[in-house]
Amino acid sequence: MHRDIPQYSSETSDIQHTDMDMRQVNSLSYEEFVETFGNVVERCPVVAAAVWSGRPFANSHDLEASIGEFIDSLPVAGQEGIVRCHPDLAGRDLKRGALTAESRGEQTQAGLTLLDAGDAARMNRLNAQYKERFGFPFVICARMNNKEEILLQLAERLGNEPAQERQCAIEEVKKICQLRLQDIIQCPATHTKL
Amino acid sequence: MHRDIPQYSSETSDIQHTDMDMRQVNSLSYEEFVETFGNVVERCPVVAAAVWSGRPFANSHDLEASIGEFIDSLPVAGQEGIVRCHPDLAGRDLKRGALTAESRGEQTQAGLTLLDAGDAARMNRLNAQYKERFGFPFVICARMNNKEEILLQLAERLGNEPAQERQCAIEEVKKICQLRLQDIIQCPATHTKL
Repeated sequence: MHRDIPQYSSETSDIQHTDMDMRQVNSLSYEEFVETFGNVVERCPVVAAAVWSGRPFANSHDLEASIGEFIDSLPVAGQEGIVRCHPDLAGRDLKRGALTAESRGEQTQAGLTLLDAGDAARMNRLNAQYKERFGFPFVICARMNNKEEILLQLAERLGNEPAQERQCAIEEVKKICQLRLQDIIQCPATHTKL
Repeated sequence: MHRDIPQYSSETSDIQHTDMDMRQVNSLSYEEFVETFGNVVERCPVVAAAVWSGRPFANSHDLEASIGEFIDSLPVAGQEGIVRCHPDLAGRDLKRGALTAESRGEQTQAGLTLLDAGDAARMNRLNAQYKERFGFPFVICARMNNKEEILLQLAERLGNEPAQERQCAIEEVKKICQLRLQDIIQCPATHTKL
């Protein structure tokens, strides 16, 4: 990257990385834990606040598994609630600057801040159809996809049955969570080499 | 109230009241519903996002009951998670201005913004003991109590068994929720007179 090219915050990925080890993670008070992991599931700090009960965690996979098991243990309405806490992709919250830092970084990285007029109109129309059909927003792990793939998946998943699509959305929530955890916690392989 | 007496926002109750009827409530999209009811359970918008699945609601008691049933349906860790999303009373978030508007109004109304040095020190000490013992903060419906009663209850509830105290905290979460709902929704008695 050339340092003399100006960077605009709305068009650059600002995914933050920290490098905590599990000793540090396991020594956090519930307040520190929620401050650190409160958005690994988008706008659902209660998930981090809940899984703190299960500490200590052996490694990041163990924490990730605890979060997954907690989500799976919720009633259907609770799982739908988690999905509903996510913003639309390339939607209102992005335009008005109301995304969480994590979402902003992820949507930027997937190219969703730079859609041309045609793609933007298609995304809006499909998002609206999707929300009308399922009663929750389309969630996909943006960092594992680009804008073309996201538009394709959105059109395709619109044809799913509601129960199948809820499960699909929850699996995407877990993928997003996995990558957000990796941004915070030192990877186990690195750790064991020390 | 004399208009010439200066009012300081940090020392006045700023509990907001709206007056929605159930027709309006039941016509909200999930996004509007979460914007409206997202903090009836403190910092847990996922609760409102979840119970939206159960609309329409007959009246505010019906919505309140849905929220209560949803909370009761959560695993123990989830209930602890909800309690952990609450701030300390007269604690760090109040001092640094980081309370939600609802909490600020409630703590102000209970007199917790005007503790003398002795009461403030007692509150800090008991809060710390309580969090050390139970792993979540002391939650009480501040609007149904004054500072003397809150200090007494805090000291008394410190002696509870953990499972009993978790249940006690959840019942207080529901009382707080009930009053926050009443601030938003037109009371059924008024409504039927129209």
